[in-house]
Amino acid sequence: MMNFGRTPRRIASKPLDRELGFGKTVTTTGRMMNPDGSFNVKRRRIGMMDNVYTHLVSIAWWKFILLVLAGFTLLNCIFATIYCLIGIEHLNGTQPGSFVQNFRQAYFFSSQTLTTVGYGHISPLGLMTNIAASLESFFGLLTFALISGLLYGRFSRPVARIAFSDNMLIAPFKTGQALMFRMINARISELIETEVQLILTINQRDEQGSTSRVFFQLPLQINKISFFSLSWTIVHALDAESPLSGFSQQDLVDSNAEFLVFVKGTDDTNQQIVHTKRSYIAEDVVWNARFRPVLSINKNGIAEVETQLVGEHEVLAES
Amino acid sequence: MMNFGRTPRRIASKPLDRELGFGKTVTTTGRMMNPDGSFNVKRRRIGMMDNVYTHLVSIAWWKFILLVLAGFTLLNCIFATIYCLIGIEHLNGTQPGSFVQNFRQAYFFSSQTLTTVGYGHISPLGLMTNIAASLESFFGLLTFALISGLLYGRFSRPVARIAFSDNMLIAPFKTGQALMFRMINARISELIETEVQLILTINQRDEQGSTSRVFFQLPLQINKISFFSLSWTIVHALDAESPLSGFSQQDLVDSNAEFLVFVKGTDDTNQQIVHTKRSYIAEDVVWNARFRPVLSINKNGIAEVETQLVGEHEVLAES
Amino acid sequence: MMNFGRTPRRIASKPLDRELGFGKTVTTTGRMMNPDGSFNVKRRRIGMMDNVYTHLVSIAWWKFILLVLAGFTLLNCIFATIYCLIGIEHLNGTQPGSFVQNFRQAYFFSSQTLTTVGYGHISPLGLMTNIAASLESFFGLLTFALISGLLYGRFSRPVARIAFSDNMLIAPFKTGQALMFRMINARISELIETEVQLILTINQRDEQGSTSRVFFQLPLQINKISFFSLSWTIVHALDAESPLSGFSQQDLVDSNAEFLVFVKGTDDTNQQIVHTKRSYIAEDVVWNARFRPVLSINKNGIAEVETQLVGEHEVLAES
Amino acid sequence: MMNFGRTPRRIASKPLDRELGFGKTVTTTGRMMNPDGSFNVKRRRIGMMDNVYTHLVSIAWWKFILLVLAGFTLLNCIFATIYCLIGIEHLNGTQPGSFVQNFRQAYFFSSQTLTTVGYGHISPLGLMTNIAASLESFFGLLTFALISGLLYGRFSRPVARIAFSDNMLIAPFKTGQALMFRMINARISELIETEVQLILTINQRDEQGSTSRVFFQLPLQINKISFFSLSWTIVHALDAESPLSGFSQQDLVDSNAEFLVFVKGTDDTNQQIVHTKRSYIAEDVVWNARFRPVLSINKNGIAEVETQLVGEHEVLAES
Repeated sequence: MMNFGRTPRRIASKPLDRELGFGKTVTTTGRMMNPDGSFNVKRRRIGMMDNVYTHLVSIAWWKFILLVLAGFTLLNCIFATIYCLIGIEHLNGTQPGSFVQNFRQAYFFSSQTLTTVGYGHISPLGLMTNIAASLESFFGLLTFALISGLLYGRFSRPVARIAFSDNMLIAPFKTGQALMFRMINARISELIETEVQLILTINQRDEQGSTSRVFFQLPLQINKISFFSLSWTIVHALDAESPLSGFSQQDLVDSNAEFLVFVKGTDDTNQQIVHTKRSYIAEDVVWNARFRPVLSINKNGIAEVETQLVGEHEVLAES
Repeated sequence: MMNFGRTPRRIASKPLDRELGFGKTVTTTGRMMNPDGSFNVKRRRIGMMDNVYTHLVSIAWWKFILLVLAGFTLLNCIFATIYCLIGIEHLNGTQPGSFVQNFRQAYFFSSQTLTTVGYGHISPLGLMTNIAASLESFFGLLTFALISGLLYGRFSRPVARIAFSDNMLIAPFKTGQALMFRMINARISELIETEVQLILTINQRDEQGSTSRVFFQLPLQINKISFFSLSWTIVHALDAESPLSGFSQQDLVDSNAEFLVFVKGTDDTNQQIVHTKRSYIAEDVVWNARFRPVLSINKNGIAEVETQLVGEHEVLAES
Repeated sequence: MMNFGRTPRRIASKPLDRELGFGKTVTTTGRMMNPDGSFNVKRRRIGMMDNVYTHLVSIAWWKFILLVLAGFTLLNCIFATIYCLIGIEHLNGTQPGSFVQNFRQAYFFSSQTLTTVGYGHISPLGLMTNIAASLESFFGLLTFALISGLLYGRFSRPVARIAFSDNMLIAPFKTGQALMFRMINARISELIETEVQLILTINQRDEQGSTSRVFFQLPLQINKISFFSLSWTIVHALDAESPLSGFSQQDLVDSNAEFLVFVKGTDDTNQQIVHTKRSYIAEDVVWNARFRPVLSINKNGIAEVETQLVGEHEVLAES
Repeated sequence: MMNFGRTPRRIASKPLDRELGFGKTVTTTGRMMNPDGSFNVKRRRIGMMDNVYTHLVSIAWWKFILLVLAGFTLLNCIFATIYCLIGIEHLNGTQPGSFVQNFRQAYFFSSQTLTTVGYGHISPLGLMTNIAASLESFFGLLTFALISGLLYGRFSRPVARIAFSDNMLIAPFKTGQALMFRMINARISELIETEVQLILTINQRDEQGSTSRVFFQLPLQINKISFFSLSWTIVHALDAESPLSGFSQQDLVDSNAEFLVFVKGTDDTNQQIVHTKRSYIAEDVVWNARFRPVLSINKNGIAEVETQLVGEHEVLAES
């Protein structure tokens, strides 16, 4: 039997009714947030131009380099075509030949113009070619100015690089149990005034029998630390106040539970505020387990943390 | 009969007396804010130099490109004139001819210098021409450095791209009615911790019969969401607490009502705080209507939103 | 008789004891803040290198341009000297002559290298000259990269351009009087969520007869507005709660009173937080006067503000 | 006898249990924070690529310049090798000779291409050399664009330059004593809304005899000032509320006490929020001493501060 109708019995935090921008009636079978922190949504017919910068600043480095290289080649081909159309004989220093030979010479003249290297062993003759070359060097500079900006944008973009444990654990805590996950700061720089929000979203059936999606802000033992230097285990106590109080492993799965993690902090290097998100689904929760230590003191008395061990845990024997 | 003298009967939020920087005595017939969110005001005799950057970063792309291109052409013309005045014979590699021919050659030499492409088939001879060319290439670099900065400023400028419904609706809400409008995030990136303020401004006649402009902050059902991913319907309940309680459609028009919307959020990509504003006037309010759904779940279980449908609504039959 | 011993009788806001970083014992005869908002202090033996960027970003435009131009000339002179020392005959395309002629040719080769225009009618020959030219073009690019950054820093630096009234007024307010000054936003862009702090600092003699400097935060009628679009008159009511209650014009002068104004807001264009400060001294206060209107509605119904009129006021006849 | 078991008797501020990201069980013999404000921790196996920008923006200027120069030389060597492999005869204008001579000519051609100076007395011939030169000038521009961004990042990086006293003092304060240290703003620009947090961390033995590390937020007389213009003495009163109440000099050393100082403010020039940290250990505390004045009024009535004197103090005679 499905427990869609289960009402969390005692709710300390009031449900965050619609406050995440998703309607109550949206009960997807899939997850709301992808593991990488992007939302599992699609916005249709939004303006592309607005998003070019966002896109170029966010894509992987190898894609960015390839894209820029392709743009450079394309621009050179366009201008080489123009120079050929005007006539290769207006490029002083070239030797007219077959179309391929002409295009090749025009292409390299174009590349020397676009990058403003301008060796000068080939130079423009006549009005049209001069105008084309003048515009090309002008747009060349603009383009490289643009790429400068993009490169700076890519590098200086504030990103938190936080390693999360792959699983959430239901671990012993004080006299009862708590839901826990662990994070490690995987950058050189510290994260100052780091805050965590943990939001639970589950399906819930009301009295009329219709199912809706409800959201709860889960109270945390500690939700803010002065700075996040090494590792941090985030703890939500499964006490009577918790919306998850009394849930079994199956209950979590049945109600299509998803845990949304929002982290916010200030990067110590450039003082920019950074955000990161992550999502855990019911299947990611390991019951009755405990995280293994991730901190150690080396022989010089310095605290060390192993980023790779962030998710290491041991399942406890049933007591 | 005009209802300028109508006093909102029960005012939950105290009037925001002068707190918007407009005096009480300003009762314009026109609107206070333009639909694009700019204020309908004019500041006279303010320093132009202060505002050049603001202007160049804000104007449309095609205007920006045209302006830069015009500047490039103008600079070249100025330097070409200088080279001609010094004497075209000081440009080694040129063939003196008619004025037009000389200017043309000087122009292209100038453009090769300004962009630092410097092919070298034309090169400066003599002190004056060398000084001019040296300064030109120097200012060329400065200018392109400036344009770099402007391009980066344009691209990285934090802007929220929010689609607003064209109308506000008076829609059924709980047991009564509410004033509603709808927004959709039209960028790829999420908006985090998004807040909305809705301010009403109406004309009001006091006991002495003089009319003044008063402002009210309208309380909202939800005025802040953790992040604004898809659509958000902002709701102001028309209950006894509302300054609009008891207003008819005509009352709104008569009192020259205007609704100012202020949205503030944090862009997920670059973590910058963005603001946007919008204004609705009395004529934009549709009575007894309801927004049509704008969210759907596609066959992969992913929530989709149609930006174009943000304003779609249906007028309800009178009950 | 000096009233150094006057104790403000009823103090609503507690004195801001030492909270401005000045000790109590500092009772300068001069003002604490200059009219332009800079503090009237001197920090000795601070590291110069730390402050170069701050300096270059803050100085006037004409100084900046001159400095950059002087740097360009200086660099060229240094490299020209190097080329001359290596031997002008290693610059292919030059004609050895007198020292001045040689230096001139070396200077222009240097400038063509530094700006990377590189016409090529003069080119380096031999190892030493080639190394020098290679380094020069390299440092040329670095230098222009630096200047790019400075130019961007200058332009994008968040500054509020606020016109203040030259005087503070003691004006009629409700049934009593109030201390007022007026500000106008002199930029194209709006200032959002603008806050004002008004701090009074006066000399005060304690029971032992020693004089110290005390600070008071003056409560304001409105200290924050949603946005600062046109003009704003800041009002501190001179009621029984005010530390200035009962002060005469002479009292203000005798106690060496100074009013420090701190304004903070968010620039609408780039969403950056901007601060500005200003100071008024006792002599700037005009008693029993009133500001003249600065807003008007033009024939298109648009509110207009005259920046120049920010300080316009009329002295009231004694009643 | 070690006082590891000492329990601070009366604790006004509750221990900041684990809130700094260090576990309780970490009782290092070394200090937690280095004097320069970096944490004495090591993160292992973190991604290097993520941290390149952070690194290049943070290292000393001379290291940065050397690194960039080395990169420039390396790139030229790589491309010179490529040109030699293709064949020096494809570089028009070179004179084939010994390997060293060829490499030298290829190296300088490469440097002229990389910096886009392109004199043209050497120019590429043939397909392969042209492709190589085209790519080199392209990557040259990208590289310098990158360096532009890094330079700007280095310059505009928000850093507070605060001079701290080398010691903390236990000084007379009111009727008792207080723990004090002093700071001076060592930049030209003001620091606005500056806040200080002082955290004490000591070893403590619980009832079971196991030692753990506890943290206390020490209450300060003044923890925020409107702006930090000259000097600021931070004061923690050693009254009954203090966790340090009753501690002797030896107690501090025995419990391995460390004082963590966190300063946060807004730079007046660019309005960026800056953070700085510092740590004092037990051995840095001087008992029964007093800071010497650091402010003076010069003959023009202007307050002066001597940065070098920030730590000057005098030990008081036992009373």
